Amino acid sequence: MPRRLSVTLTSVLRLALATAVVSSSVVLVGGAMVWRLEGDRHGTTFESLGDGIWWAMTTMTTVGYGDHVPETTSGRVVAGMIMIMGVAVLGAVAAVVALIFASAVARREERLLEAEGRTLEARLEVRLDTLDARLARIEEHLQGRAPRE
Amino acid sequence: MPRRLSVTLTSVLRLALATAVVSSSVVLVGGAMVWRLEGDRHGTTFESLGDGIWWAMTTMTTVGYGDHVPETTSGRVVAGMIMIMGVAVLGAVAAVVALIFASAVARREERLLEAEGRTLEARLEVRLDTLDARLARIEEHLQGRAPRE
Amino acid sequence: MPRRLSVTLTSVLRLALATAVVSSSVVLVGGAMVWRLEGDRHGTTFESLGDGIWWAMTTMTTVGYGDHVPETTSGRVVAGMIMIMGVAVLGAVAAVVALIFASAVARREERLLEAEGRTLEARLEVRLDTLDARLARIEEHLQGRAPRE
Amino acid sequence: MPRRLSVTLTSVLRLALATAVVSSSVVLVGGAMVWRLEGDRHGTTFESLGDGIWWAMTTMTTVGYGDHVPETTSGRVVAGMIMIMGVAVLGAVAAVVALIFASAVARREERLLEAEGRTLEARLEVRLDTLDARLARIEEHLQGRAPRE
Repeated sequence: MPRRLSVTLTSVLRLALATAVVSSSVVLVGGAMVWRLEGDRHGTTFESLGDGIWWAMTTMTTVGYGDHVPETTSGRVVAGMIMIMGVAVLGAVAAVVALIFASAVARREERLLEAEGRTLEARLEVRLDTLDARLARIEEHLQGRAPRE
Repeated sequence: MPRRLSVTLTSVLRLALATAVVSSSVVLVGGAMVWRLEGDRHGTTFESLGDGIWWAMTTMTTVGYGDHVPETTSGRVVAGMIMIMGVAVLGAVAAVVALIFASAVARREERLLEAEGRTLEARLEVRLDTLDARLARIEEHLQGRAPRE
Repeated sequence: MPRRLSVTLTSVLRLALATAVVSSSVVLVGGAMVWRLEGDRHGTTFESLGDGIWWAMTTMTTVGYGDHVPETTSGRVVAGMIMIMGVAVLGAVAAVVALIFASAVARREERLLEAEGRTLEARLEVRLDTLDARLARIEEHLQGRAPRE
Repeated sequence: MPRRLSVTLTSVLRLALATAVVSSSVVLVGGAMVWRLEGDRHGTTFESLGDGIWWAMTTMTTVGYGDHVPETTSGRVVAGMIMIMGVAVLGAVAAVVALIFASAVARREERLLEAEGRTLEARLEVRLDTLDARLARIEEHLQGRAPRE
């Protein structure tokens, strides 16, 4: 089933790309937002856009070193959104890897079912061949006898 | 199979909603509890309900910055429950995303099996048509000869 | 398929129990080991068995506050093992939740396939009934004519 | 289906081994790189190769204690790669565990479908046997009558 394999790989690559694009956007936009919201606070650790992006990355991957932590309510709301996105991204990555395996299992399953279907059909065909042959003999017999009568 | 798709989407949306409701409740209740249990401790970092909720959120998503950490045994027991819920929520999110993909794969599988079933049936129908036609000829032959005898 | 559902629920409960038992053991044994290995170090933060267990729990769930961190090589080796167990436990929890859903999908699939199998069989039965009736008529016809000859 | 079981277990073991090898390599190489990049920085916490490897391990498993954190841009880029690998490894582990369960479910499914296929075939065989017997009687009847005419 080469068509099926390619379809699956295409969806996986599409999802992987979508995950990468969404994750990068969340890290860049979220990091920039928190840097803006927290950067002017007295005693802030968000000293540059780079710090914001670095923090957003450690948050989204749920690593959370704690070297940079938002302390304003608005900063924490943005952080909460990044964390929720991070959990969703983790789920998507797990699902993509699981899908690759599951589709391999499904393909094997499918081939086995096809093989089984063919076996069933083949056995029924043999039986129907026998019936057909018998009927052909009966027909010939009846037609062969017809002129003799 | 539009009915099936809608059923699957409904279950996914229901689970997503349930996950969101349970997670929010755990964050709010757990955060409030730990703030109550830790807020009066000397040198606490849980200075407000907001700190409690923020801490509960970073704990549930397993980010764990470490800017707020419970130090009493009762606070740690509540924290442990939030962590366990967090692991379960991560699993549920991963499962929901995996389910969406798996159901797509299952639908394709189903269509392929249906198509195969129809092909098998169509081929058997052709064979049975042949047998039927043969029998009809035999019957006609026998009935056609009957009056001649 | 009530038997099947119960089988699945039993396996899920069994895995959930096994995960809980293994996780608890790792947290207790690992926490005690690191407390032993790190507790005598100058400037340690592992002041009690409770600190060890608390740290092991935050490590296994990958929260990692960083309020207690092993600094000896042997403590870090034990920590590494707890981390690896934590990743495996996360995977097991995700798999259990995914399994519950997948088995629900599989049960629907199964019912659809059964229904399809029954439809195919019913249609073939109708065809075979027709053939059978035709053959019965031929047989009667032949036997009815036999005495007349 | 013993052959199938062994195939699945082999793929799982192969993936588990691949995950372990890739993870170990990323931890060793990434830890060494960050130690090199960060070790000479004033006020660094990366004092030895061991610190680098320990940090890489806490990063890859997304534990992220924050006891060692890269602060140079190049160190953070390496850290980001390790985090992304960590998320992928988490996904792979979840997928492997899910696969083990899914393949067990798939095997039950397969056995049920096989059993159903055999039941369908058995019932059709009984019907075909009846048709065959009827035809045999007709043939005998016709051949038995032939000499008498």
